[in-house]
This record gives sequence, C-alpha cells and structure tokens, in this order.
Amino acid sequence: MCGSAMRFLTAEAKASAGRLDGKMREKTLTMDTLNPQVKAVEYAVRGPIVLKAGEIERYLEEGGTKPFSEVIKANIGDAHAMGQQPITFLRQVVALCTFPELMDSPSFPEDAKWRARRILQGCGGHSLGSYSASPGVECIRKDIAAYIEQRDEGVPSDWENIYLTTGASDGIMTILRLLVSGKDSSRTGVMIPIPQYPLYSAAISEMDAVQVNYYLDEDNCWALDINELHRAYQAAKQHCQPRVICIINPGNPTGQVQSKKCIEEVLHFAYEENLFVMSDEVYQDNVYAPDCQFHSFKKVLYEMGPEYFSSVELVSFHSTSKGYTGECGFRGGYMEVINMDPEVKAQLVKLLSVRLCPPLAGQAAMDVIVNPPQPEEHTFKQFHQEKSSVLGALAEKAKLTEQILNAVPGIKCNPVQGAMYAFPRIFIPPKAVEEAKALGMQPDMLYCLRLLEETGICVVPGSGFGQKDRTYHFRMTILPSIEKLNVLLGKVRDFHISFLKEYSGLE
Amino acid sequence: MCGSAMRFLTAEAKASAGRLDGKMREKTLTMDTLNPQVKAVEYAVRGPIVLKAGEIERYLEEGGTKPFSEVIKANIGDAHAMGQQPITFLRQVVALCTFPELMDSPSFPEDAKWRARRILQGCGGHSLGSYSASPGVECIRKDIAAYIEQRDEGVPSDWENIYLTTGASDGIMTILRLLVSGKDSSRTGVMIPIPQYPLYSAAISEMDAVQVNYYLDEDNCWALDINELHRAYQAAKQHCQPRVICIINPGNPTGQVQSKKCIEEVLHFAYEENLFVMSDEVYQDNVYAPDCQFHSFKKVLYEMGPEYFSSVELVSFHSTSKGYTGECGFRGGYMEVINMDPEVKAQLVKLLSVRLCPPLAGQAAMDVIVNPPQPEEHTFKQFHQEKSSVLGALAEKAKLTEQILNAVPGIKCNPVQGAMYAFPRIFIPPKAVEEAKALGMQPDMLYCLRLLEETGICVVPGSGFGQKDRTYHFRMTILPSIEKLNVLLGKVRDFHISFLKEYSGLE
Repeated sequence: MCGSAMRFLTAEAKASAGRLDGKMREKTLTMDTLNPQVKAVEYAVRGPIVLKAGEIERYLEEGGTKPFSEVIKANIGDAHAMGQQPITFLRQVVALCTFPELMDSPSFPEDAKWRARRILQGCGGHSLGSYSASPGVECIRKDIAAYIEQRDEGVPSDWENIYLTTGASDGIMTILRLLVSGKDSSRTGVMIPIPQYPLYSAAISEMDAVQVNYYLDEDNCWALDINELHRAYQAAKQHCQPRVICIINPGNPTGQVQSKKCIEEVLHFAYEENLFVMSDEVYQDNVYAPDCQFHSFKKVLYEMGPEYFSSVELVSFHSTSKGYTGECGFRGGYMEVINMDPEVKAQLVKLLSVRLCPPLAGQAAMDVIVNPPQPEEHTFKQFHQEKSSVLGALAEKAKLTEQILNAVPGIKCNPVQGAMYAFPRIFIPPKAVEEAKALGMQPDMLYCLRLLEETGICVVPGSGFGQKDRTYHFRMTILPSIEKLNVLLGKVRDFHISFLKEYSGLE
Repeated sequence: MCGSAMRFLTAEAKASAGRLDGKMREKTLTMDTLNPQVKAVEYAVRGPIVLKAGEIERYLEEGGTKPFSEVIKANIGDAHAMGQQPITFLRQVVALCTFPELMDSPSFPEDAKWRARRILQGCGGHSLGSYSASPGVECIRKDIAAYIEQRDEGVPSDWENIYLTTGASDGIMTILRLLVSGKDSSRTGVMIPIPQYPLYSAAISEMDAVQVNYYLDEDNCWALDINELHRAYQAAKQHCQPRVICIINPGNPTGQVQSKKCIEEVLHFAYEENLFVMSDEVYQDNVYAPDCQFHSFKKVLYEMGPEYFSSVELVSFHSTSKGYTGECGFRGGYMEVINMDPEVKAQLVKLLSVRLCPPLAGQAAMDVIVNPPQPEEHTFKQFHQEKSSVLGALAEKAKLTEQILNAVPGIKCNPVQGAMYAFPRIFIPPKAVEEAKALGMQPDMLYCLRLLEETGICVVPGSGFGQKDRTYHFRMTILPSIEKLNVLLGKVRDFHISFLKEYSGLE
C-alpha cells in the first residue's frame, strides 16, 4: 500500500493494513544492534548504585520507611547539591549578563557590572543568547590566558591556545577524539592512572581505544611512580601504540597532589616516548595539605627548558565545577593547548564548530573565576571571605574524613591532600567476597549497596575507578557540611564494624 | 637520563640533555596521525567562508578599507547576533534562577518568580550550580511532556521519554552514536535530505557511517518525494544497511514545511523498512506561509493508528536556539524518544551520564518556552507582544527575501515557508565554473567568496549543504532587520548582475 492512499483510511484500518502478512515489526535499535562501544561504556559515578539511591529516595518520598530518613549522595562532586553556597559575585555577573536591565539596579556592584558589560561586548548583539565563536568569547579567552600567566608566575600563555569547553569532560572527549583513530583505534593506547576518574575509561570504551593502566602507589599516598609508568608503557607496547598519557592532579578519586619532581619525571617520560600529555587540573584550587602545592604541568614544562617547552604536546583542562565555586550546572570549562601542530589545531576548531559553542553562561562563570575581584575593588572583601570560607571548610573536612576513617579497624585512608574525595581502602572479609562473587558483583559493590540500604549513604565502589586486584575501596566526597559529614562518617564506622562482624562470624 | 636526576640540572642543561642524539623530536599528533574521521568532517556553516569573514572583520577593525564598512553575517541562524531582542520573560526567569536574591525585587513579576522557584526546587540544593540528573531536571521534563501533549492536541507524552540536551546538536549526535556501530560502522546507512544541515554529514563522517542522500524536489518547493526515498533506499542497500532516516521539518537550509500527507508517507516507509526515525523539529515555531502548518511527526504517527504508534522508533528534537526566542548561547534543547527498547534506553541514560548533564540555564530557558505565560497571567501581554513581533517580522522578511531574490535574473528562490533561511538557486556562468575548477574550489564557493569580498555579505555556498550536480545555491538567513535585509538583498542583486556580466563576457 503506497503512502498516498493511506490518508483516506481510518486509524484502525491503517493499523491492520500496516502488516498484511501479520508479522510483528522488529525494533531497529536493540541490545543486539546497539553500537557495541556504547555497550562497553561504564560510568560508576552515576552507575547502578546511584540508580538504586534514586529508587530509595522515591520510596522515602512516597512514605516508605527505612532505618534512615534521607539519602546522602556522597557519590559525586556536586558541591551546591550538598549545600555549598554560590559565590555571590560570580552569580551577580552571570545574572547581569543574562538580564542586562539589571545594570540600572543599585543593588548590583559596579565591579560586577563592568565585568558583565565587557563580556556582553564580546557577544554577538551584546547578548548571552548569541552563539560565540566555537573556541569561546575572545575577551574571556584573553582573561584566561592572563590568569594562567599569573598563576604560572610569568610563563607566557597565548589566548589563541585557549578553548572554552562545556565542562572539562567535553574538552577531554574532544582531544581524545583527535588522538584516537577510528579504524585502527584498537591500536591507540591511552595511559590513565588507576584509580582513575571513569570519564577516561568511558571515553576509551566509546572510542574503542586501548586503556593502558598505570597504578598509583597507595602505600606512598597515591603518588605516581615513574618506574610504574615505564612498566605500563613497555607492557602496552606489546599490543598497542601508546600515544597519550592522562594525568589527574590533584587526583580524582585519590586526592593526592603531585610533587614538582614527579611532574618533571612524567614530562620527561612523555618527551622521551613521544606521548601527548593530557593534564586534568580541574582541582587546581583544591589543595589542603600544608606541605603540598599545586604545580601546573605547563609551568613545570617551562622550567625544564626550551627543548621541552617547545616540543611536548600538552593540554591542560580546567572547569567551573570544582575549586571554590562548584558551579557544575553551568557546564563551564576551558583547555589550554600547547605545541599542537597548527594544521591539527585548525582541525580541532572545525570539530568544535560542529557543536557550535559552549554555553555562554558557563563561559561567563569561567571569566569570573579567572578574573575575580581585586583587593582595590569593593567586592573583594566579600568575595575573599566566601572563597576562604569554602576552601577552609573543605580543608577541615579533608582532615576530619581522614582522621575518622583511619580510626575504624579495617579502613585505611590516605591523606586527602587535595580535590574533594576520600578513597579509603576497606578490608572486606573473605566470606563477603565469596557472597559477592556468588551474586555476580564486585565485593566493594556489595559493600556499597549494603551501606546504602542500611544507612542511606551513597558512595561509589572502588571497582568503578579501578584498583589493584584483591584491594577494595570506595570513593566518597568530602562535600557535606561538617555536621552532616560527622554523622555520615559515624554511620560509615558503625556500618563497617557490623559488616566485619557479620562476615567474620563474630556475631 | 632518568627523570629523578633531572631536577638538579638548569633549564638549559636539561634542554640540551633532552635529545643527546641530536634528533628533532617529532610531534605525536600530526595531520598524518590525526583521526582520519575527524579529517573527513566538514561543517560549512562555520567553514572557510566564515574564517575569511572573520579575517575581513579584523582587517576593518584595524583600520583597513574595503568597499563596505561592515561584514554582515547571514551565514548562521544566530538571531540575537543579528539584533533580535531576547524575550523579556525568559531572561527574567533565568536571571531569577541564577541569582535568587532577586526573588525579593519588586521589579520582577510574580509569574516569573514562581516559575524560577519551581525550577530551583527541582535542582540539587535549590541551585542552578548543581548537576541535574543526566536526562534533565524532572519538573522541566514534565513541563515539556505537557507542552507536547498540548501541541499535539492530546497525543500522550510520557515525561520519562524526554531528555534535555545541550542544544539539539548534542541530542542528534547522541542518538546517532547509539545507532552507528563502531567496527562495522561502514555498513550503517543514515538517510539524510539533500540539501541538509551539515551537522548530519559531519556526524556521519565523524562516526564513519554511510551517508545515504535523498534529494528534496526543488521544483516542488523542496518537498520530500516518497519515490525518491525508495530510490535512495534501494540504491543504498547495495552497499550498506540503511538503519536511520533523518528529516528536518521545517527544512534547513530549504525552508519548506512538510505536509501531513508527506509525513505519513515517510512514516509508512520507515515502518515498512524498519528504519529508526530522527525528526529534527527545531523550527516548529517558525512557520510563515499562510497555507502551511507544522505537523509533528509524533502526532501524525499517532493518527496513523496503534500499529504504527506502538512500533515506529522515533526521536524528535527541539531547541531554545530557534523559534521566537533565538537563545542559541544557552545551549538548551530536548529530545522525545518514542518506542525505544527499554534496555537501549538505559544505555542512552548511561551514555548521557558520562557528560553529566546539559547546562542548567539552558534547561531553565527551555522550561519557559514550553511553559510560557498564560492569558490570565500579568506577563502574558508583554510576552505575547514580543513573541508576535519576532514571528511577524520573520514572516515579513521571509516574503521580502523571496520577492527580491526572484526579481534578480539568474536567481530563483523557493518560498521560505518556514525556518529562517532562504536557499536560492543561482545561475553561475560556465566561465565562472571553469575558473572555480581551475582554483580547485566549488563554483558556489567562488561566488560566495566574491560576494563576501565585494559586499561584506557572508552567506554559505550550497555545496556545504549538498545539492544536485550542476546546480548552485547559497544559504542566507532572513534574520537581519528589515532595513538591513533590504540593503543586503539589494547588494546581492547588484553583485549577481555584475557577476553574470563579468563571466558572460558582456562587459
């Protein structure tokens, strides 16, 4: 039956006419026909445990009862959801950009107004509703370059090397897309730390690259050991061509802050082995341990001398989502691209242009982070207070988390030197390991599911980030308020003790 | 030299030590090693002609002289950049969400405040700075479902089938990612209209799928001819498995609005051939021709009866960037997914979760579009005036563009029934075609480059969208103000006449 005749039929007649042969129409897109690379993707941070947490939340909302009254989501670095307040100045600038009629309002500070005006002047039609150039608004790119120069004590930064992104994740995916060749993709090795942030493994699965694991040294505060890099690289060379090394500093989920010496070693290694360096530095403002300091890969590369600084291909990623602002929902971020072949850079711009541009409100938020109030500005005091208050509380919570967890028998937690997570090692009794195996799940998944069901605390199993065989961990954020964090850690302690008892046959 | 010794050397010593053998270090990422699928991507809307326009703009800014004083960018549907004003109510709601302190301001209407409060209640910590669930904020998904039900006169819409996206482009890429299998991707055929919006061809290149062209009928107002669909499908089956059909309605770049009969035919065809339907309906509010009406693919599917409505897999895309709001920079959008296999849907959610969530300001903007002021609300009058004013002006400009272009000898322009572009056919004299060939470029690229250099008007060659062999077109937006559009069209006319003269040897 041809389509043009169809319109004269009733819906029912059409329905029965649809398949005169009576066969059921099969779906086009099924688990069998789905892109297998999508199937292979895993993303634990929003994985099964989080879906379960959602179910429990709905159950509680609908009046169901549990041994707890609320689910505490310590699974994801989502600061505002945990009660952190936005930085007033940042929101003022973005609100002014969004609704420029507010420029006439006396309740908005002049410092915010001139920033908003400057951003809008960089936007088509002076509107946040225009597309920006695909790499971002020019004056914001310039502000970012100036920020990087200041952060790196004078190391030059060229604004044309700056690309705004839709959160750091978008930048990381884009750069990997350039590096991982489609057809011989199974030959492209991407070196990532283990434990890692699972965006990396997910991207590698989606692009069908080869994941090359280098293990961080848990016994040495999750430090990166250069010998392990060599081992991983040599082993990988047997079956693929490692072309990229990814580093997360400060570490996610591991919270370590890399020393300058360590960074030098990594860069020297990348130089020698011709590796492209992807440096995930989204936690650059989140350093708490007094003996630690953030060193950017770029600055260290510069200090290694011109032979290095003029040759090692390096991309550094930053974000509005972390630091002291925690503006995840704005999906702001940037990457700085060093030593990229100019023709490849043109290809990068082309690839970015297909997605048009990153969200403008996120770009504006990024601008405030790199161009915050200065001491001579009226807004400086409040801004500084808010920033210090967030970072001070995080430092306190980092310490608290480490201390309480380390007081629990069978839990060992490295110091949370930076970022916003603890990644404690947990002892899981053999009987529990067996039970998990019988259920077809990882032992730490069993542990985290039990923790969720008994206490309402949602953390992510270490297996979602990768860990050495027969070691078990979980990742939890240190973002809840001190009061809540104290309660949470107390519950974890009680749960752990009873879990040990149960599976050690001590009850 | 091992890395640990390095730190004792000066930068210079390190530089010379870097390569003791004196060889130059090669770059890791070059045009030779770049992912060839990225190389294959083309995106004319921001392609070479737009880069050239940027160069000329900078040249003018730096005091250079040209026969014109400004570049007019009619290459991209970027309404605000062309002077369109934002819808006040939308911006009020987003500003309130961004800076909730404004809830106390008497200058914001209550209608906007309650919407902003409701959105914030759906956000973690009541902040736009939290991640939302990956498919979007629940209450916004519900508002979208309600909007679709109303638009489609009661056809049911389930909010759990709604997924917010980062502009429509993001949704389109995501769905294609599910459908195009990595390893045997060269066997997955994706049917697209020609002319098309080049996001489709770019995505197909990036994913290494097979582009299956079906040609729209220029002689019949760019209508979709079912026989041409059959032809394209049968031809493609010789070398690939067509699995998806993409439709753009109203058309981009072609501006046609599909009839209900035509949509029925497409859906019947998709039903018969087991094709997954991707319906790009971002211009659903942009219908100008009095004899045309927007029919959603979903509503037509419903009216075809339960056999169709319960089986054809259909995704419809919408956006904040077009319509009467033109909020491109917010990167807001959604897709409604019908009849997707539930297991595949879980995979879709997993894939979305890797990118965390769409920008929250864009989600809030989308909410206003689907939940605008109602007649009983105080803000209705202004909202309605602003909306009518934008759409009325667009209708006028659509008519004006068609009329002026059709009065030029050698230009033929179909009516701009909808969307925001004209895609006129231009006669290019054989001598100009030869010259272009000699220069290694498409004839319409030569034409558009000359137009840009002589008049400052930036339009996109038809070759960037696809067209029948030996036909030439360009796409221009109808977005400039009426005054500017008149000037622009006059310049196009004068340029075209002199171009014809030059290459027809009449000078």
